[in-house]
Parts: sequence; structure tokens; C-alpha cells
Amino acid sequence: MPSISTKGRQMPPSPIRKLVPFAEAAKQRGTKVIHLNIGQPDIATPEVALNAIRHLDRTVIEYSHSAGYESYRRGLATYYAKHGIHVTHEQIIVTNGGSEALLFGMMACFEPGDEVIIPEPYYANYNSFALAAGVTVVPVRSTIQDGFALPPISAFEALITPRTKGILICNPGNPTGYLYSKAELERLREIVLKHDLFLFADEVYREFCYDGASHVSAMTLDGLDQHVVLVDSVSKRYSMCGARVGAFITRNAELYASVLRFAQARLSPPTFGQIASEAALATPDNYFTDVIGEYVARRNILVDGLNTIPGVTCPKPKGAFYCVAELPIDDADRFCQWLLESFSHEGHTVMMAPCSGFYTDPATGRQQVRLAYVLEQPLLLKAVDCLRAALAQYPGTDKAALASASLVG
Amino acid sequence: MPSISTKGRQMPPSPIRKLVPFAEAAKQRGTKVIHLNIGQPDIATPEVALNAIRHLDRTVIEYSHSAGYESYRRGLATYYAKHGIHVTHEQIIVTNGGSEALLFGMMACFEPGDEVIIPEPYYANYNSFALAAGVTVVPVRSTIQDGFALPPISAFEALITPRTKGILICNPGNPTGYLYSKAELERLREIVLKHDLFLFADEVYREFCYDGASHVSAMTLDGLDQHVVLVDSVSKRYSMCGARVGAFITRNAELYASVLRFAQARLSPPTFGQIASEAALATPDNYFTDVIGEYVARRNILVDGLNTIPGVTCPKPKGAFYCVAELPIDDADRFCQWLLESFSHEGHTVMMAPCSGFYTDPATGRQQVRLAYVLEQPLLLKAVDCLRAALAQYPGTDKAALASASLVG
Repeated sequence: MPSISTKGRQMPPSPIRKLVPFAEAAKQRGTKVIHLNIGQPDIATPEVALNAIRHLDRTVIEYSHSAGYESYRRGLATYYAKHGIHVTHEQIIVTNGGSEALLFGMMACFEPGDEVIIPEPYYANYNSFALAAGVTVVPVRSTIQDGFALPPISAFEALITPRTKGILICNPGNPTGYLYSKAELERLREIVLKHDLFLFADEVYREFCYDGASHVSAMTLDGLDQHVVLVDSVSKRYSMCGARVGAFITRNAELYASVLRFAQARLSPPTFGQIASEAALATPDNYFTDVIGEYVARRNILVDGLNTIPGVTCPKPKGAFYCVAELPIDDADRFCQWLLESFSHEGHTVMMAPCSGFYTDPATGRQQVRLAYVLEQPLLLKAVDCLRAALAQYPGTDKAALASASLVG
Repeated sequence: MPSISTKGRQMPPSPIRKLVPFAEAAKQRGTKVIHLNIGQPDIATPEVALNAIRHLDRTVIEYSHSAGYESYRRGLATYYAKHGIHVTHEQIIVTNGGSEALLFGMMACFEPGDEVIIPEPYYANYNSFALAAGVTVVPVRSTIQDGFALPPISAFEALITPRTKGILICNPGNPTGYLYSKAELERLREIVLKHDLFLFADEVYREFCYDGASHVSAMTLDGLDQHVVLVDSVSKRYSMCGARVGAFITRNAELYASVLRFAQARLSPPTFGQIASEAALATPDNYFTDVIGEYVARRNILVDGLNTIPGVTCPKPKGAFYCVAELPIDDADRFCQWLLESFSHEGHTVMMAPCSGFYTDPATGRQQVRLAYVLEQPLLLKAVDCLRAALAQYPGTDKAALASASLVG
């Protein structure tokens, strides 16, 4: 029997999806599972996108251009311009979700063995794309005490080696929800220029900024035309994760040409998804007003609720629809599995993503979980109740932390 | 300015798509371009698939399972059983086209530097996936004189090294249209077992077998459960290339688990495409009867027509919808570009894929082109007329070959 490759063995399971079999078993037992593990919103996809699909008038579902339909790319360029990002349709390659943009970008920019610095905790699948490309992820730690703000520039400098070729940020952040300020981005600009690095900016949560904060794109930083790769996706913006339509965007012509050749090899991005995505560009502004209002309400319920549980710390993020909470437990992987295997509260339990997979060293995230507030408000209230009850029952809870916290609180 | 990676520089342009700018310029000048360069059929997608999309009743376009919808995978397993391929839905991972199945399979099976033997000429994008995975393609030559039959087992044996980890076949073949016999597959089985190799079988043209020939799947070979990777796609079967729905199939449980982790990293295959593909499983049999009849008629017009042109050799293939023709010219890349830049015949020209990209050493395919007979019969007649006229005018035509051929013919 032939053996599989080192990469094939090392490819990590998704921390977001690895507990799915336990969730399925819980559902079999009749327990309702509140899915806060995955960024799959329950928000309706814009009607204008669904209608484009329902009114499909094609008789042959053909390949598109490898870079995506020109009409869609032109529409995207107009959309970006509204957000202060000025690119042409010939600087955009439509991809199979943001995932493919990351994979192609890493393979085109980095040699196997090159190092990419990523503020951690970071989106777990960055590890997978890095592994596929042979790239070494070098984490720079952000802390829950600082609300996951960008680490100081000295922390980046300390990690630079001759193999450092890039920095990757997610803004607003998954899993932290942290929104980088203009000043933080300027600090990144400085180090990118000083060491001639690529700056990958995953900005798929651009629309989701709260409390009056606004998003600053890495594409607006001066003098970084040759350095910035923007990774985008329609998945979250229009709540159509299943469309699998993302974008790789750069003003670096050599890099664009290279990624286009990667794109040619897989022929084209999905036609149906592009039809829906192009139509979605006409989504009325009040759709976002409503959705953002809903996410703020959800965030407040979940984060405020979590912070009322003794021993739980959860910064209130200004973006995306995730938060990271620190729990008074021995091990979040064990706790999350226990929630699905051995716990229910009024017929419900909660599924979360253990943060071990969001740190390079799993031990760092041992007491943290990521929660996605993508479900309706009553379910989030129920989830907080579940977690409160669960922490009181879970054998691995640090009872002293619970007690001292409740004394303080 | 940071430099792009070696892979990024080496990633080859698609020989199928690299001449697109010249085709666009020809169209700008008013010349009608007959597209025989790309396997994009004009055949209608089954109504049952299109209707499933038109009757979409979802309000949120969600991710599916990373391996694809279970209902679709169960339907696929039933479809394969009808073709004598016995697999369960837990041996199938739905992918972003056959392309992603190839990429994931190569990364999961092979170390960088491992060698995979591929009969050439082969589908050009295999080079791209191999490059992405760091795999070395070792070609074993099939010849136009033998109609591109499987090379003798001794030719494979001569290429085996300690780094040989796999063999990749396309059956029926792209670009040759060659359909491997049971006896040829048994020869492959022998060498796969002897050297403990993976056998990748790209069988996306399964339905398209002609002249009473039938398809033998690598999945039906005895004793290869741990060795065979089946690559599939709905693109050609249902003429829905743009759906971007393929499949990675193996009975090797360790390999399956590994590729599922690659699949988790990119979250899910496209939801719309899966809805259409699941519905397409109910395509009535007469759809294929009609389509196969049409392809046979097209093949006969194109291949018989090409063989009436002095100096042109084109074996008549029994499968897929491609043929490879040898032309009495100096350089197929130059000729194909010239056809678009400098030629028209009654307002038409022909776009073909030069075979240089289908061989590891481009020089081997210098006089060959791939033609896809994916257009209606009158256009194929017109294409043959165009090529006859073009070969008479093209400065790089070997006039002696033309003349001697016409004496013989």
C-alpha cells in the first residue's frame, strides 16, 4: 500500500469542523445544537442575488474567463471604489472563495521554507494553505488582555529573519473581531517597506464594522502597490458562503500574471456563483444597515452575556461576527467535545470552535474558544445560559476561578 | 519590490487559453473565430439541472459539508454503481471541478520531488498541478503512429526510479481521445502493484465512448483499492463546465481522510453547482444517446476532413471529444497564432491548442495541434476548409510534404 505524503499527514483538521461528528451524534440523541462554531450566518442572501439565479436564461453552463467574467470584475472595481479601494478589473482575479485566493497567493509569492508573520490567534485555515504552499507560519502574539490589538512593531521586528517574505492580516479579524486602526496599519506599512515584504490582507468582513468605527483597507496604504495582496469573498458580505466566490486583488502586475496562470490551470471560478455575485452588487444599502444592526445586537447579547459568567473574559470586538472568550477550564478542546457528548441544558447545547487551532502552539489557546454570533438573538441568549450551566457542571472547570470571580463580580 | 516565487514564475500559461488575446483581436477585426481550442461543448445542459437552479427555494446560500452534500454523494454512488464502479458516499469528496481533485490528490499522495509517470501527450494542466505540488512529471511517450495507445510496459519500467510514486492516466484521453482497453489497464495494474504506486485515473469523459467501445474504469481493477484515485467531473458529462463540480474518489481510507482535511481548509464545494449536479443525476438516458450520436458525427466530419488535407495525419479516436493532428508545419504555436493574427477564409479562422503544452518537452509536439469537436457540424466543415486553405498559405508549411502527400493521396 503506497504511503501518503508528509503534507497529507500533517494537514490539520479544521478546528471549526472537526467536532462535527460529535454534533451529529448529539442531534441523533435529540439535543438541539446551537452552532456558534462556524461563520455560517443565518442572514438571508439578498433577493437580488437569488433572483438572478432563479431567472437564469442560459442553456449551456459554460466556463467563464479564468479571471472571472469581465462584467463582474468591472462591477467589483466599482464596488471597491465606493470603499476607497481603487483597482481596475485587470487587477482582480475571481477565485473559488477567499480560500483559493490565499492558496494561489501563497504559492505565487513564497518559496517553500519562506516565513510569513501572522498575528495570532489567526484563522485556522491559514495553517492549511501555508502547509500546502510549504510556507512556515511565524506567529506574533496578540493578547486577550489588549483586546487582540496589533502587537507592537518591535514584536514584528524581533521575528524578522532572512526567510521572512510576508505578513498576513485579517481585518476585521477572524477569530478575534478586532478592527485595525489606521495607525496600526501605518505601522505595518513601515515594516513591510523596510523589509520588502508582501502584505496579505484578508478583508472579507469589510462591511461589518460597529460602534461608528470604519474600515481601513491595506490597499489604501501609500507606496505598497507592489506589496499588497487583497483577499476578498462574497461569502459573508451577502451571506452566501456556498457561492464560493472570492477574489485575489493586486496592483503588482508580475504577481497578477502569475496568479492568472494558476487560475488558468483550474479553468474558471463557478459560473452560477458569479451570476449571483454580480447581481448582488446591486444589493440596496439598507440591507447592510439592517444586517449591521442585527450583528451589533447579537454581539451585545453574546459578549455582554459571556462577561456575566464568573471567570469568563471576552473583549467586545468592533468588527466581523466572532469573538474569542477565555474560559476557566482545563482544555477547550475537551470542553467543546464534552458540551456535545455529555451535556445539555433544557434540551440544548452549544458548539464552539476551540482556539487551539487558531494558535501555532495549540497550548496557547487551551482556555479559549471562538464563538460566531451568526444566529438569532433568542438562540444567543440560550447559548449564554447553556455555557453558564455547562461551566458549573464541567469536571474540568477551575472552581476556584469561578468562586473568586464571583466574589470580585 | 518583493519577488515572486519560483513556482510563481514557472507556472505555465494554459496552452488552451494563452492565445485568447489574439482571438479577441481577430474578433475585433470582424473575423469569426471557430473555437476548437477548448473543451467547452455547445451541447445544452440537461433541463433537469437548469430547472433545479431556476426553482431554487433557499433563502440563505450556505456552505455544504466539506465533502459535499451527503444526498449528492449518495446519488453519485448510485450513478457510479450503474457504471460498474462500487463506492460508498464516504469514499467520495465533491471538489471544485476535477482540477481541485487532482491538486488535492497530488499534494496528499506525493512528496515534493516525487515522480509521476504520465503517458504523453497529456492534459496540459497536469503540469500545473504537479508544479503546485512540487511533483516531477515523467512522461512516457505514446505516438501518433500507434494512435496514442498505451506505451508498452517496458517503457514504464525503464522510467521507474526510487522517487516514482504514481502513474496518472486520462481515459478516455485528453488530448488524444484514446480509450484504453481492459488489457491495457491490466498492464497498468501489474506495474502499479509491482512498484506500489498510486494510480490516478482521470475519467471525466467516461460517457463519451464511440463505435461500440465501452469504458473500463481503473476502479474496477482487482487489488488496487489502496492505490486508485478516481478523478471525476460533471463538466463534460452534462455540458456544465461552469458548475465547477468534480469529485475525488478513493477506497484508501487514510488518503480519503487526508484529502478531506484539504477540503475542510477550503470549506466547501459550490452549493449552486451541487444543486445542479445532484439534479443532473436524473438526466434521461436518451440525452446521452443523442449527445454521443452528435459527437460521433462531429468526430467523423472533423477527423475524416483533416485526413483529406495533404500532409495531415489524425488518428480517429474512440472517446472524449478531442483529436490530435500532425500538420506539415514548422511550429504549431506559430501556426495557431498566425491563424488568429494573419489569416481568414471566408470571414472565418480556427483557434486550436498547440500541442507543445501537452508534452513535457515542448519540441515533441511542435507539429501537432489539439482540436476539440465541441461545435456544430457546419462549423466543423468550415474549420476543415479553413485549415486546408491556411496550410496552403502559411509561410511555415512544408510545401514538399504537401506535394508528396498529394501525390500519394
